Amino acid sequence: MAGVTGEIRLRLDVAYDGGAFHGWARQRGARTVQEVLEDALRLVLRLPFAPALTVAGRTDRGVHARGQVAHLDVPADAWVASGDAATRRLGRLLPPEIRVRVIGPSPDGFDARFSALWRRYSYRVCDDPAAADPLRRGDTLCRPAPLDLEPMNEAAAGCLGEHDFAAYCRRRPGASTVRTLLRLDWHRPEPGIAVGTVVADAFCHNMVRALTGALLAVGDGRRPPSWPAKVLAARTRDPAVMVAPPHPLCLEEVRYPPDDRLAARAALPRRTRGAAGAAED
Amino acid sequence: MAGVTGEIRLRLDVAYDGGAFHGWARQRGARTVQEVLEDALRLVLRLPFAPALTVAGRTDRGVHARGQVAHLDVPADAWVASGDAATRRLGRLLPPEIRVRVIGPSPDGFDARFSALWRRYSYRVCDDPAAADPLRRGDTLCRPAPLDLEPMNEAAAGCLGEHDFAAYCRRRPGASTVRTLLRLDWHRPEPGIAVGTVVADAFCHNMVRALTGALLAVGDGRRPPSWPAKVLAARTRDPAVMVAPPHPLCLEEVRYPPDDRLAARAALPRRTRGAAGAAED
Repeated sequence: MAGVTGEIRLRLDVAYDGGAFHGWARQRGARTVQEVLEDALRLVLRLPFAPALTVAGRTDRGVHARGQVAHLDVPADAWVASGDAATRRLGRLLPPEIRVRVIGPSPDGFDARFSALWRRYSYRVCDDPAAADPLRRGDTLCRPAPLDLEPMNEAAAGCLGEHDFAAYCRRRPGASTVRTLLRLDWHRPEPGIAVGTVVADAFCHNMVRALTGALLAVGDGRRPPSWPAKVLAARTRDPAVMVAPPHPLCLEEVRYPPDDRLAARAALPRRTRGAAGAAED
Repeated sequence: MAGVTGEIRLRLDVAYDGGAFHGWARQRGARTVQEVLEDALRLVLRLPFAPALTVAGRTDRGVHARGQVAHLDVPADAWVASGDAATRRLGRLLPPEIRVRVIGPSPDGFDARFSALWRRYSYRVCDDPAAADPLRRGDTLCRPAPLDLEPMNEAAAGCLGEHDFAAYCRRRPGASTVRTLLRLDWHRPEPGIAVGTVVADAFCHNMVRALTGALLAVGDGRRPPSWPAKVLAARTRDPAVMVAPPHPLCLEEVRYPPDDRLAARAALPRRTRGAAGAAED
């Protein structure tokens, strides 16, 4: 057969409205981001079967993404045949609740999940009814009283660094819950709106929403700023921590190292975190 | 009967997702903002019938508002009985696509429509597929190629001031189409996003969307920057002007004069513009 031989790895940058899906990961009888994307890619790249996507952040049901990253391996032929038109054709084929922002060949050694240095999430809260915006109700938590960000940031600082986050995770057998929290803070981009920023090398299941729930309890005065770090140190799931709702959470960015260090990075986390199946969101 | 006598005028600051309604104005067989609001006010203020709201901007079907202002006159008794709890109770009663941000007695002489000095609208465009955000698809126009804002702003400047905007209005018999355009410009709040700002003393029907349609034709190079002012000067509806879609349009703010000049202002536009029924949006 004529044509380019071998496989090529494509990187996709993806944004979606999580409210329209039952999370990222394929599951029977539910509409998921992965399924809708893989089906569209099969058509656009004219593959005999739906390709398997590997993703940087397996977002839960209801969680949004503006900066999701995924990869897939396809026959080089398939990409050459439809490459340049792929973004446009995906735009027409996909429902408006998913957009593929960019698609193209990835550098050598790139792995959307295991090459990632860190993931950044945002959590958006409106804490003043006079600032309520119905246009943002799909990605904003509404609260009747103002949050005090100063104690929240004091509490957040106490959780930074490498820890066993078992207290803030839904545990999975065989999976490590050690993570490095690189950033956790809150600011007001406009009056009545508070936005939390969370960055870690990776997250275990429910970790962002559980940390957020603990900080919200500090922000409205139910708990002292020392409480979230105390919960963390206990290393066991504390039922007093309310997991915050998913719809204000958005995966904003996944950061990768320079191209020449992608492969080395990809080899690393599997070793240090043990189980390849460790959940991330 | 005991209690406070007479009527009291209440001012409401309202935000809504226009995609959920057939415009502001009540009409048979269609769900409108006015109807849903008036019905909720009747319940919360325990009125025997739905009150009549007067609004600053009668937004069309699909047009949003973050800064809509309305007023209604109610028996002073009714307000005294439920005043402080009204915002909270409206919040519970209204669907999430409408929020009453503030409600309370207005200063003497206030008229939501006729006291207004000006109305400010925004028009939001995403002109780079790599910046597409499905969370904002309800209030953003998506275009496949970048707009050039410089000629758009040059063209916009040529339309400022007091003019007969007949070329950009759906004409209504007996209504003046003379308006004062106070501001019209475009900027980029973030890469891939262009936002137009339009301020006028008032708008005739379709005026913002027709002006926007003319400027978009300049922004993508189909028309020269001189074209929109030329169309304006002709004072007749030009079929070459495409009326831009409604969903990226949002009423952001209505500005009123200081309290001691409200009544004087309210007496003015009816005289100068003639018909009390002049449509505004």
